[in-house]
Amino acid sequence: MEGDPAKSARKEPARARRQRHQVAKNRPPAGSTPGTLAPAAAASATRIRAMRYGPDGCEEREIQDARELAAFCRPEAFLWVDVQGLGDRAALEWISAHFQLHPLVLSDVVHLPQRPKSESYPGSIFTVARRLRWKGDPEDLVDERQVSLVLGERHVLSFQEGPDDVFEPVRQRLLRGGGRIRVLGSDYLAYALLDAIVDEYLPLMDRLGAALEHIEERVIECPSRALLTELARLKGDLIAIRRDIWPQREALHGLMRGDVGAISPEVQPYLRDVHDHCVQVAEVLEVYREIAASVMNLYLTSIANRTNEVMKVLTVVSTIFIPLTFLVGLYGMNFRHMPEYGWTWAYPVLLLLMLVGSIAMVVVFRRRGWLGRPPE
Amino acid sequence: MEGDPAKSARKEPARARRQRHQVAKNRPPAGSTPGTLAPAAAASATRIRAMRYGPDGCEEREIQDARELAAFCRPEAFLWVDVQGLGDRAALEWISAHFQLHPLVLSDVVHLPQRPKSESYPGSIFTVARRLRWKGDPEDLVDERQVSLVLGERHVLSFQEGPDDVFEPVRQRLLRGGGRIRVLGSDYLAYALLDAIVDEYLPLMDRLGAALEHIEERVIECPSRALLTELARLKGDLIAIRRDIWPQREALHGLMRGDVGAISPEVQPYLRDVHDHCVQVAEVLEVYREIAASVMNLYLTSIANRTNEVMKVLTVVSTIFIPLTFLVGLYGMNFRHMPEYGWTWAYPVLLLLMLVGSIAMVVVFRRRGWLGRPPE
Amino acid sequence: MEGDPAKSARKEPARARRQRHQVAKNRPPAGSTPGTLAPAAAASATRIRAMRYGPDGCEEREIQDARELAAFCRPEAFLWVDVQGLGDRAALEWISAHFQLHPLVLSDVVHLPQRPKSESYPGSIFTVARRLRWKGDPEDLVDERQVSLVLGERHVLSFQEGPDDVFEPVRQRLLRGGGRIRVLGSDYLAYALLDAIVDEYLPLMDRLGAALEHIEERVIECPSRALLTELARLKGDLIAIRRDIWPQREALHGLMRGDVGAISPEVQPYLRDVHDHCVQVAEVLEVYREIAASVMNLYLTSIANRTNEVMKVLTVVSTIFIPLTFLVGLYGMNFRHMPEYGWTWAYPVLLLLMLVGSIAMVVVFRRRGWLGRPPE
Amino acid sequence: MEGDPAKSARKEPARARRQRHQVAKNRPPAGSTPGTLAPAAAASATRIRAMRYGPDGCEEREIQDARELAAFCRPEAFLWVDVQGLGDRAALEWISAHFQLHPLVLSDVVHLPQRPKSESYPGSIFTVARRLRWKGDPEDLVDERQVSLVLGERHVLSFQEGPDDVFEPVRQRLLRGGGRIRVLGSDYLAYALLDAIVDEYLPLMDRLGAALEHIEERVIECPSRALLTELARLKGDLIAIRRDIWPQREALHGLMRGDVGAISPEVQPYLRDVHDHCVQVAEVLEVYREIAASVMNLYLTSIANRTNEVMKVLTVVSTIFIPLTFLVGLYGMNFRHMPEYGWTWAYPVLLLLMLVGSIAMVVVFRRRGWLGRPPE
Amino acid sequence: MEGDPAKSARKEPARARRQRHQVAKNRPPAGSTPGTLAPAAAASATRIRAMRYGPDGCEEREIQDARELAAFCRPEAFLWVDVQGLGDRAALEWISAHFQLHPLVLSDVVHLPQRPKSESYPGSIFTVARRLRWKGDPEDLVDERQVSLVLGERHVLSFQEGPDDVFEPVRQRLLRGGGRIRVLGSDYLAYALLDAIVDEYLPLMDRLGAALEHIEERVIECPSRALLTELARLKGDLIAIRRDIWPQREALHGLMRGDVGAISPEVQPYLRDVHDHCVQVAEVLEVYREIAASVMNLYLTSIANRTNEVMKVLTVVSTIFIPLTFLVGLYGMNFRHMPEYGWTWAYPVLLLLMLVGSIAMVVVFRRRGWLGRPPE
Repeated sequence: MEGDPAKSARKEPARARRQRHQVAKNRPPAGSTPGTLAPAAAASATRIRAMRYGPDGCEEREIQDARELAAFCRPEAFLWVDVQGLGDRAALEWISAHFQLHPLVLSDVVHLPQRPKSESYPGSIFTVARRLRWKGDPEDLVDERQVSLVLGERHVLSFQEGPDDVFEPVRQRLLRGGGRIRVLGSDYLAYALLDAIVDEYLPLMDRLGAALEHIEERVIECPSRALLTELARLKGDLIAIRRDIWPQREALHGLMRGDVGAISPEVQPYLRDVHDHCVQVAEVLEVYREIAASVMNLYLTSIANRTNEVMKVLTVVSTIFIPLTFLVGLYGMNFRHMPEYGWTWAYPVLLLLMLVGSIAMVVVFRRRGWLGRPPE
Repeated sequence: MEGDPAKSARKEPARARRQRHQVAKNRPPAGSTPGTLAPAAAASATRIRAMRYGPDGCEEREIQDARELAAFCRPEAFLWVDVQGLGDRAALEWISAHFQLHPLVLSDVVHLPQRPKSESYPGSIFTVARRLRWKGDPEDLVDERQVSLVLGERHVLSFQEGPDDVFEPVRQRLLRGGGRIRVLGSDYLAYALLDAIVDEYLPLMDRLGAALEHIEERVIECPSRALLTELARLKGDLIAIRRDIWPQREALHGLMRGDVGAISPEVQPYLRDVHDHCVQVAEVLEVYREIAASVMNLYLTSIANRTNEVMKVLTVVSTIFIPLTFLVGLYGMNFRHMPEYGWTWAYPVLLLLMLVGSIAMVVVFRRRGWLGRPPE
Repeated sequence: MEGDPAKSARKEPARARRQRHQVAKNRPPAGSTPGTLAPAAAASATRIRAMRYGPDGCEEREIQDARELAAFCRPEAFLWVDVQGLGDRAALEWISAHFQLHPLVLSDVVHLPQRPKSESYPGSIFTVARRLRWKGDPEDLVDERQVSLVLGERHVLSFQEGPDDVFEPVRQRLLRGGGRIRVLGSDYLAYALLDAIVDEYLPLMDRLGAALEHIEERVIECPSRALLTELARLKGDLIAIRRDIWPQREALHGLMRGDVGAISPEVQPYLRDVHDHCVQVAEVLEVYREIAASVMNLYLTSIANRTNEVMKVLTVVSTIFIPLTFLVGLYGMNFRHMPEYGWTWAYPVLLLLMLVGSIAMVVVFRRRGWLGRPPE
Repeated sequence: MEGDPAKSARKEPARARRQRHQVAKNRPPAGSTPGTLAPAAAASATRIRAMRYGPDGCEEREIQDARELAAFCRPEAFLWVDVQGLGDRAALEWISAHFQLHPLVLSDVVHLPQRPKSESYPGSIFTVARRLRWKGDPEDLVDERQVSLVLGERHVLSFQEGPDDVFEPVRQRLLRGGGRIRVLGSDYLAYALLDAIVDEYLPLMDRLGAALEHIEERVIECPSRALLTELARLKGDLIAIRRDIWPQREALHGLMRGDVGAISPEVQPYLRDVHDHCVQVAEVLEVYREIAASVMNLYLTSIANRTNEVMKVLTVVSTIFIPLTFLVGLYGMNFRHMPEYGWTWAYPVLLLLMLVGSIAMVVVFRRRGWLGRPPE
Repeated sequence: MEGDPAKSARKEPARARRQRHQVAKNRPPAGSTPGTLAPAAAASATRIRAMRYGPDGCEEREIQDARELAAFCRPEAFLWVDVQGLGDRAALEWISAHFQLHPLVLSDVVHLPQRPKSESYPGSIFTVARRLRWKGDPEDLVDERQVSLVLGERHVLSFQEGPDDVFEPVRQRLLRGGGRIRVLGSDYLAYALLDAIVDEYLPLMDRLGAALEHIEERVIECPSRALLTELARLKGDLIAIRRDIWPQREALHGLMRGDVGAISPEVQPYLRDVHDHCVQVAEVLEVYREIAASVMNLYLTSIANRTNEVMKVLTVVSTIFIPLTFLVGLYGMNFRHMPEYGWTWAYPVLLLLMLVGSIAMVVVFRRRGWLGRPPE
């Protein structure tokens, strides 16, 4: 009776986790014309924030429709359009029309999840990045979101799944105008956005590492069943994150080497830096995965160890007392003709024999290391 | 007696599974002239549906013989010939003759299973794709079929194992005429067909993922033997699917990069998109395989855990009661000279001693964490 | 006493298997001049069958000496010399002299086993292939033999370890003259010979797969020790076959891409087909190896499962009866002052208590899932 | 009560280990302008030692400020500036300004840990190396530090985490002037510094190897729980070191092949030598990692072995004595009508029967190898 | 007491094995000038044997000093200088000076162990090879030695660790003058020397394979603890050999492809042959490593199997006799009011009941396959 709520509670996070491995979460029906947009899953409002900037200044505006966007553009300025929330398909379509995006770009922006990648289209570079953030919820540690970037000659478009603040520091830097951010053009802005995303990985990895080491410590101390569940979940998280980080690394590598389009030589060292952080995260991830596998092994071995210890105790007790019990049973028999029964010293001699036998066995067990600690 | 039908029932799906790993299911005898067609395994009827289309219109016809096919062709129109069922060898041969297929192409179409691949022949590209579909049967989850495509200058041939509806949406789009499908030529049609096949992978993966997580949950809750069988079967399915997906990915990569022949630049982004989906599926598959291996490990560890728990109970009970049984056996002996028998307080004192000893042992076991839950 | 013949019988196949992993089975002494031929291991007779063919006809003759060979050659015809059995070193040397083979070629023909490879020499291509055939002997499933081919401008030499019929279908096709075999030259003949060898792999793989699945089924049903031996042997076979197939694949790849010499463009699609079959076999092999590893795991887990079940029964029985045995032992003591002995209801009350206690324990065990099946 | 200090003591090293896997130990806040330096973690003083050298002589000076540095430079001499301790951000910035370092270089110098790498910047090569040293502390075996090098046309900058003596031999060689160190320019000096770092790896590996073999020996002798902890820690260390060595190898490979900038042909063989040592260390590391995994397996198998031995003893004792105990219990029953009780030879015959039965069982167990050692 | 010598005996080989994994066995102090030679570890005498040969003749002489060497050289003849034993540093230095070796070459010759490699220096190729020989000592199976070769325009230098006869057959062939050895120049001689080294691998591999199969057989028959130690040692040997073979293969590949310098086209097929043998050995090694891992698994599974069998016996015996013992204990109680005691048929009926119960249980256990062999 009371098991039901517990069970269903346990199934909740499982369902949440399942979505992370889903590949057809939000797709148009199979076989439909490419470019067809699936209806928005949940009605998440769309907010469009445009920033127009150049060496001389920076202006921000919330965009409501296509005309407003067209009016806000200036040929001599750089433009950053940040779209938060993908619910308003109409808005996505007029943005797409304004910047002449390929139908597949919009399709990839909308149909989640896509794997991180960098692709070149005539006049623009399209890159999909994955945000990863520590959620703190013990049942579901990591929050994943997709960010899509379109990098054009003089504009950057960014598409986020929902309202979020990962780009807030970049926005502040643009408004403050310090550094090279207003000077170096749209590829530098794209770098800054990718950098903001990748920078979030580092503290996440540290948290996962701490969680892993916490489990490892306790496995050695006392391997409990709850720990096993926890470890399995953490391992699943590492596998899932890896699926994001590795293509992310490749996508950044493609951008960095300029495989997919023109990145100016001044910006390349910065992209190399982001790529480098991503490689570092990928390497740490491999380390964690290895440690996780090793901890699972440690767990199994610890359990085997403990079973061995339990068995030793059982065997020692049984091996000493079962023969003794037989002996006392022997002299509990009711045969009329058992001469020992009449002997005066029979009882104390038997007691003595049993005592000596027991001590001998204890000595043997001690030597085998089955009793007490091994001599080391 | 009654075990037999159960056994044979269990062997049925095994036989079905065996066929999936078979490589010589339908082959001509070894050493025969290349191009020799093996006789059709099962008499599956052959249905030939041709579609003639261009920017201006689209016409469909069922083709019965070579002459009809020749009559249906128009030099200025694109042609799609969809062959369903490979039983009619004569039909396959006149189609092959009409389009001047290389003998090895027809051989690969007929002799199942071939691995997915893309190959160039003079004037045409030959590609083998694998359909994968969720069957729902718990004994045999996935249905695999081969689709062979020949992409010529102005025609596409598709060969399917049996009557099927995977290309129905593409046929509808051709008849409706929306989008670019009538404009972009035969390579776009080939893309559309491949896209329809790969699109089927995504929901399949989600189903497999859900099945896997369902097993994982239950392994932690209660590892039963039935679960082990289920897991082994799912693992086998993942291995089999992987054998299909990886070459499929390569085949699409070859097509996408134009290694094997001329794909127009306009169609390449679309092929890249299909390839990308296939890569995503391949990555998810690796994730699943890792999870499956990890669940098998989890199972073993869970079982070891449970055995440990069972052993602890046995050891605690034995260690407490076996010495007590010895003690009461001791005073069940029938020696005449046992002074304790006459003592008035012997019985209650013995009871008290046994009680104290038992409590002491329980305390010790509790401290070791063998009794009750560990203090955590 | 009677164990000895059994033991030695068991060692026989081990010795046979050992030979498969041997690398120095038939080698000249270390440090000897390259080209030195080791003496023939067993006196296997050498039979030389030459075929002279062209578009117009085909003639076969058994060759006895060098002069006969020289007389049989025609500059305008293609020549195939098939050498069966490597015992007659003199014959090998005059063949080698007639076709001006590099000393290392003859050395590789004679000194078995060589790994499959393709090498170019001035004017000829040398390729080593491995035949694999199902033997049916449960102790030693697979029979391995080496076939060496030398492909010259207008001749093909084939060297086999013993009298064999793998090339019989090719010989028949040459005599019948159907297809392109007489027209396309010596590289097509080399393809036909390689195809005959690789075609033998497919049914072998299917047999191995069936054997593997048969083991898998029985492991889940009832993991016995004999099964373990069988599985270990099959696994060893898979490892050994893999060692042959992978280099075979590379050797065919080298031939196919023309890395090692001139293969005419007309023959290349055929070689690609053989290579493709070999890749397919290699992939299936990986699948089998994974399944074999997985079955070994399954075995271990099944055993752990069974041990767990056995332990549960033991624990349940012990935990119920050991305390009861103590209780009845308690009232078997012979103290004079045990007031319970005189009570009228003592016996039935004790019986009742024991019954209630036992039932309570059974209930507890049932809840824990230790008794009967878990509620699922 | 007394468990707490032990626990916290155990957590101390864990914390130390955690830092080794940290990737965000010392980073500026996410999203800040690239080049922003995070405040120094601990106030480690900065000491700047400059050496000016050429074929004719060598001078050393402690530098306090930018002016002093500028004054110390000579256009015709080579300069080595060794910065020990990264606490003084101002000093780092005027050094950076003097040598016109890219902002990302200084950022990588300061923000620890970076992965080993080699990067080219206009006019300079930046390389990050990792020092590894045996600490001897059983809780935390290896000490890791970062050394950053900037190699310019006529200068080398080295940045170390703290005061250290790894470069002391190089300094002595410069002052002594022997060999080619003063003649071959700044790239040879960079080589000498890298060589000093990589040379420290070799004795470290030997110590790790010795520790590993010490554990392996004891696992076979007597697998204890402490050993398991030790092994897990050593394995973690190997994983962590690997994370450093592999990129270090790549970084040296890049330098050696001149991918990242101009290394003179005279210095390249020396760099190849350092690279070679690093490859050797990486290979030994893989060997150690494999051995560590294998030892973990050995441990599990040893434990299983021991449990098996313990079980055999328990089973032998129980199987012999439990039936005997039943028998003597049988004749301890108090039924009035048990004819055996009156037989004169009942007792000795029963004793004899029990003796014979026991001996028979011992013989059976011996044959099965459960008692005593197997005959081998 | 008597355990000590056994223990120390067991530690001896461990120390020997440790040296095999050592990387800093014989190195100059860290940070010293490159080219500094570490003092010779053990005073192994140095013997220098020079051979001067050409198509017309061959002369051998023991060289004592630099002058003698200079006098022995002839510009028109090829020269082979074989140095056995590296103890005499002075001799090494005048040889090095005479042939103008790079300081790093001599350093690599002297500082053992180096990994096998091929490096080009101006005017010469330097290659390090590893000899591997079966020692037969069960504690330490394989003997490893380094051989360094310098291949110049018209000379070959070989450096061996000690007096040895691996090159004796080559010396004999030079003196006999058969084959191409005197004609083809110094690169052919280098090939002949490398061939002599690699030829030693083949019988070694066969011995290791035989040892491995011997262990495998016995693991299935009867998994003992001694076997585990043996297997662990063999596995360690395989890992160590692999560390030598793989770089050896690469080094030969580099030589074969002429990456590192000029090998004449006539000699290349011979080097390819050596390379091919080395690849074959590397492949066999992988097979052995896989088998070794698989045998370890087999061992664990066998042990689990045996424990399961032991447990079944224990459970069967306990489950049958513990309840019976309870029953007979029940009727051993001394209550005055136990009506059964007076019944005439109580005893035989009880006996009958116990018999029936036992038989029933035996039947149940048989059905479950816990008693006797499974029906199969």
